[in-house]
Amino acid sequence: MTSTTLDLLNQRHSVRHFTGAPVSDAHLHTILAAAQQAPTSVNGQQISLVVTRDKATIARIAEIAGGQPQVAAAEVFITVVVDFQRPMAAARLAGAESVIQDSAEGIMVGAVDAGIMLQALQTAAAALGYGSTAIGGIRRDPQAMIDLLGLPAHTFPLVGTTLGVADPEQAGQPKPRVPLASFAMAERYDLAAVQQGVSQYEDQLRQWWDAQGLTQMPSYAASCAMYYKQIYFPHIAAAFAGQGFHFKDQ
Amino acid sequence: MTSTTLDLLNQRHSVRHFTGAPVSDAHLHTILAAAQQAPTSVNGQQISLVVTRDKATIARIAEIAGGQPQVAAAEVFITVVVDFQRPMAAARLAGAESVIQDSAEGIMVGAVDAGIMLQALQTAAAALGYGSTAIGGIRRDPQAMIDLLGLPAHTFPLVGTTLGVADPEQAGQPKPRVPLASFAMAERYDLAAVQQGVSQYEDQLRQWWDAQGLTQMPSYAASCAMYYKQIYFPHIAAAFAGQGFHFKDQ
Repeated sequence: MTSTTLDLLNQRHSVRHFTGAPVSDAHLHTILAAAQQAPTSVNGQQISLVVTRDKATIARIAEIAGGQPQVAAAEVFITVVVDFQRPMAAARLAGAESVIQDSAEGIMVGAVDAGIMLQALQTAAAALGYGSTAIGGIRRDPQAMIDLLGLPAHTFPLVGTTLGVADPEQAGQPKPRVPLASFAMAERYDLAAVQQGVSQYEDQLRQWWDAQGLTQMPSYAASCAMYYKQIYFPHIAAAFAGQGFHFKDQ
Repeated sequence: MTSTTLDLLNQRHSVRHFTGAPVSDAHLHTILAAAQQAPTSVNGQQISLVVTRDKATIARIAEIAGGQPQVAAAEVFITVVVDFQRPMAAARLAGAESVIQDSAEGIMVGAVDAGIMLQALQTAAAALGYGSTAIGGIRRDPQAMIDLLGLPAHTFPLVGTTLGVADPEQAGQPKPRVPLASFAMAERYDLAAVQQGVSQYEDQLRQWWDAQGLTQMPSYAASCAMYYKQIYFPHIAAAFAGQGFHFKDQ
């Protein structure tokens, strides 16, 4: 019983190839309802989802995300929206004005809750046998997503996920991680362990790719260098400001 | 088989009362290893955990979080740390310097990944029968957590979770959510649905509390007003800056 959920977590991997088989209405409802029980900070419920099933819209999202075939091939795309419209409307019912959307704290709450919701969604989908991949690429052009989904002020399309039936001919497998001891540290942070873990993982991930014949895939160091040597999505602060969010303290 | 994981998600609720029974080393290892398979943006693995089992340190975290008995009563406290030390070390191995930690994009990546990790941790714990509650209260005084856990520059203690054996005498139950149709919207965001959902939920949550004899608990509107009428954790942007993070675009 309990091992099943653990197996599902231990076997988790990004699914990027789909058969094209549909996601049924009933299954989609089950996935969304289960995900909604995920916690939100102070039960503010500052997350909404926009569920895209229209193929032309999915194709447009794939384009916005940088031309990603794995997005274009998905049956469903779910955008996880940080949504302060909801608690703002609630606060107004009680005669108060929310200021959370002006603060760095508010942005953090929204982003953490978005991650929680994303993981709950993907776990629920996996329990029904569907595959998915988290898509941060929608932040490549937040304004395009805002326009496409009709998102008002005080909402932000932070991350999304594909959903579909995994193609068994092109199945992925769980990727190794940095050594557990360099990821989960007892009592105090250990910088030397983190750095040693990086060196060890650099070799391990290289061997893992090579063992699959994917010698062209970058190592951990090459990948981090490639992505992080520049700010690869450079319009995030501006896009937040455009939606009426501000990274400010009091 | 599949219904078990869905049941676990559907029955999820915050556990705030523990029996004091231990979390075994073997179970803790299983939970951490399962959580580590959660995805991170571009496989940057920019999340570390600090696992606190020392009772005096847990008591101190409870104090930092505002004097929370549910934290003090936990057997284990796990702090989810946004950790750009790891990809920065990796990029340096490849002869590059990471700039992701300077950007709003980087902060978002770290926060979303922290939420994903938190949910994976709690799901793994629940699969083994443990209870937990997400604790954002550590952001009440980020510097105190930084000092307590020895966190270096380019790391940040964003959120945490309690862990322990749920006290069956004081069991919680899943709280209702806003109507599903006002949470998960088809194709385009629907502000009217969100606002109507708030009104409907305001009554539903009130009735739910009252049915449990917890008439003193605030309604959704009262709760959102109470928390969000001021910036309740007002030192987040400053604390991030102190750790060498900057909410900037290019």
